[in-house]
Amino acid sequence: MNIILVGLPGAGKTHIGRILARKLKRNFVDLDRKIEEETGLTIKEIFARFGERYFRRLEVKKLQELFKLHNAVIATGGGTVERMDARRKLKNLGLVVYLKASPEVIIRRLINLENRPILTQGDPLEKLSELYRRRDKFYREVSDVAINTEGKDSGEVVDAILKSLTIDGLRFPRKLYINLAENSYPVYFGEKVALKAGEFLKEKVTGKKILIVSQENIFGLYGKTLEESLTKEGFKTDVFFLPQGEVAKSMEYIVKLYDKAIEFGLRRHDTVMAFGGGVVGDATGFFAATYLRGINFVQVPTTLLSMVDSSVGGKVGINLPQGKNLVGAFYQPKVVLIDTTYLKTLPRREVLAGLAEIYKAFLIAEESLVGWLSGLNLDKLRPRDWQRIIKAAVKIKAKVVSLDEREEGLRAVLNLGHTIGHAIEGVNGFSGILHGEAVALGILWEAKLSKDLGYLREEEWEKIREFIEKNYAYLKLSLNPDSLLVFMDKDKKNREDIAFMLLKKIGEYPENVEIKREWLQKWLTLNFS
Amino acid sequence: MNIILVGLPGAGKTHIGRILARKLKRNFVDLDRKIEEETGLTIKEIFARFGERYFRRLEVKKLQELFKLHNAVIATGGGTVERMDARRKLKNLGLVVYLKASPEVIIRRLINLENRPILTQGDPLEKLSELYRRRDKFYREVSDVAINTEGKDSGEVVDAILKSLTIDGLRFPRKLYINLAENSYPVYFGEKVALKAGEFLKEKVTGKKILIVSQENIFGLYGKTLEESLTKEGFKTDVFFLPQGEVAKSMEYIVKLYDKAIEFGLRRHDTVMAFGGGVVGDATGFFAATYLRGINFVQVPTTLLSMVDSSVGGKVGINLPQGKNLVGAFYQPKVVLIDTTYLKTLPRREVLAGLAEIYKAFLIAEESLVGWLSGLNLDKLRPRDWQRIIKAAVKIKAKVVSLDEREEGLRAVLNLGHTIGHAIEGVNGFSGILHGEAVALGILWEAKLSKDLGYLREEEWEKIREFIEKNYAYLKLSLNPDSLLVFMDKDKKNREDIAFMLLKKIGEYPENVEIKREWLQKWLTLNFS
Repeated sequence: MNIILVGLPGAGKTHIGRILARKLKRNFVDLDRKIEEETGLTIKEIFARFGERYFRRLEVKKLQELFKLHNAVIATGGGTVERMDARRKLKNLGLVVYLKASPEVIIRRLINLENRPILTQGDPLEKLSELYRRRDKFYREVSDVAINTEGKDSGEVVDAILKSLTIDGLRFPRKLYINLAENSYPVYFGEKVALKAGEFLKEKVTGKKILIVSQENIFGLYGKTLEESLTKEGFKTDVFFLPQGEVAKSMEYIVKLYDKAIEFGLRRHDTVMAFGGGVVGDATGFFAATYLRGINFVQVPTTLLSMVDSSVGGKVGINLPQGKNLVGAFYQPKVVLIDTTYLKTLPRREVLAGLAEIYKAFLIAEESLVGWLSGLNLDKLRPRDWQRIIKAAVKIKAKVVSLDEREEGLRAVLNLGHTIGHAIEGVNGFSGILHGEAVALGILWEAKLSKDLGYLREEEWEKIREFIEKNYAYLKLSLNPDSLLVFMDKDKKNREDIAFMLLKKIGEYPENVEIKREWLQKWLTLNFS
Repeated sequence: MNIILVGLPGAGKTHIGRILARKLKRNFVDLDRKIEEETGLTIKEIFARFGERYFRRLEVKKLQELFKLHNAVIATGGGTVERMDARRKLKNLGLVVYLKASPEVIIRRLINLENRPILTQGDPLEKLSELYRRRDKFYREVSDVAINTEGKDSGEVVDAILKSLTIDGLRFPRKLYINLAENSYPVYFGEKVALKAGEFLKEKVTGKKILIVSQENIFGLYGKTLEESLTKEGFKTDVFFLPQGEVAKSMEYIVKLYDKAIEFGLRRHDTVMAFGGGVVGDATGFFAATYLRGINFVQVPTTLLSMVDSSVGGKVGINLPQGKNLVGAFYQPKVVLIDTTYLKTLPRREVLAGLAEIYKAFLIAEESLVGWLSGLNLDKLRPRDWQRIIKAAVKIKAKVVSLDEREEGLRAVLNLGHTIGHAIEGVNGFSGILHGEAVALGILWEAKLSKDLGYLREEEWEKIREFIEKNYAYLKLSLNPDSLLVFMDKDKKNREDIAFMLLKKIGEYPENVEIKREWLQKWLTLNFS
């Protein structure tokens, strides 16, 4: 994942950034320098000729371009946080580190104010203090970790940053924006945050009706409270229950949902809320995308898997008798509310299913997060630890989705573990094994495949094997190689051969590798017979 | 509709534009002046400081802002046509007039070259000749009419422009771009243009399969030729037949289409082509939007109505037993091919159904087009006349759709005649009367309503009445006022009262008027009993 440094002018963003990048063997990008290079003007000249507002706009544009980067260290300008759209992008761009220092300390550090236009008008200390008063809240808003730099030398600051990339170091913001051209939307995190759905919708939506789509078990536990929180805000609600399991993702139930919506009088500016796991979210989302050509949609995921995966990204759909997710759409919710309250009653297998997608997210994006996830004792996690883990996983997914709303390119990196994972689900008739569990095994075997092809290093493969075996040893499956291949052939993403997204290095995006059918058959026979 | 003037520097765009605007009582906008005002710099200064490329980018941005305008006269800069994206936007922005003059004539006219940066380097005549050689093809590409200004005084040029706003004067480009943020796509016009679908798709699409969705009657006439033109380009095709009539727009047939597509092995990068009228386009579009979360979609409309209306704009959908178009999506095709070949065998009632939507388009956008459409003898129209009429209507719709892809605002202006029109269809059980015919009557009665409310002038109402009565006198319906009201109540666009888009002046966008139910009931009783 990118590491982004924010803080006051003179807080050491460029200096620390360079050292950190060298230490992590990553590319370093200085946003200000990048702008200077591309315009052929110094920041000072840009300010003088076009004013600060012009510069800030330019900054936001350049930030957007930085989304292409993965695993870079990025130093921002001190004022990048001034614009709301820049703050939203920053949060989405990677892990944000706030380098803290008081104006007094900074003044003592600064020798050359020459190319710091913002400090050259009037008394520098006064100016810096004013900036601090205005911006401190912005730096705190965007950052996942704050590092006090006072009294530390550069090496110590860098060490503090590296140490902070752990569950206790990172705090993550309470709100992330999924940054899509027209359809940006916020994801809120927290205990009881779902109960704020009504407040949020009152501001954003004109219709007064909300149809809640759920399943009886989860609704029995938490539904009434949720419904009351909506009616309290003046909404008229009704509830539709889907059955448990994949059977709910069928045209039969979508048609029943249409009927229910018409009977309830749901109109274009009204809302449908998915309250449940991935099945509920997928089916409800497809209904939302197609009823009256699209109505407001809210996701309240109640399983770990749906919190970190299906609720974010806009992929909605249903199954046909011929296969899973053959019918669907890309349809973005107005808001996603990730309420960790619901995890308390989640069965252990469901927790492990969610963990697999979290592990996948860390594997493709950030080695340090993989490290600490592997070291954790899952049974001792506190609710706020879960919140942090979830936020980290969502942040990774959010950045990928931001760059590729309709799965035309980059989004394929999220398919790590899914080619074999889907086939394992298929061989089991999509029952008996949870999607997340199948992904866990998919990650294991695709890592093996990558190692056998000479991509993934032996030690990294060992790490992955250890993690999966530690957590998923209870999954005892006998897998027939030929049946696996049958399901891989069906995968809609392939055109010829069999396409895999193979991890070549932990913490880096996996890459597309097309494997000849015959070779794969031999490999499968060797490994699964 | 906006009138946009293009041509070489010194061709008289600003001067003629001012006079034309005064004569038509329209606002005049000079793109160069607008840029100068907003940047606080002269064009010359912008060129000097930032270079031409920067200026051209700014121009495209400003062009996009001009899309807000309706019925303005707009003078562009001489070089606006240089960028492809600017040319696409220009074509979409309104009627484009090319003011032609040779470099020699222009040089004699020009006295002050001062603020014409492009002419101040080197010999002006040489420079102008070079611009002419480069840009003449662009001016011709974007313009709907070319006016030779040589030997004419300003008054004569203006008269020539006004005279050109007739069927013989306008030629329209062969290709229009529907200018949407991410989903822009071209519409091609012409005899046999559908037979070029394969060529187009070969460039834009990676999949090799095309599923043609059609109906037996139209496919029987033209299908084989079309299919051969695709296989000739290396595509593998298959055909699925929908039944005639609205029954095809049902979940039942969509599910059959899914089955057919899976059986044919249609994958994500393959294509589905709608070959038929509005029913085929709507159902196929919904299939395209939802199969594998969206596959490539091509529209080849074969009725006049679908050519001018449903094939452009991305609204796709099916009916439920409870009502029409209750399920659907906004899904844009990759290309629309409007092939007037198919009009030759179109029954007269179908032609008149299409004419109603054309008339509606002209009513909301351009008085002069309404004038000549009213004066035409429909039975004497040549194929190329039809082409021009169709292009004019599509151009009007394209601009509206460009501004409001998802029908959240402006697009409502296209609903003129549709509130009463839909109710008339409903009362007739959606059979016996064609959609376009119902819209014709809807236009008539909504114009009456507008007149009765004191909005539309008596003479304008008379003109509309005359046109509808002349062409649609054969429609003898007895309409029960209470039943009409029942159907208006159902309209999904209303939240309270009954919403109409009422025309207040011919050639201007209609406006939303909410009418109290009781008042409307009286008015309906008075008019329909």
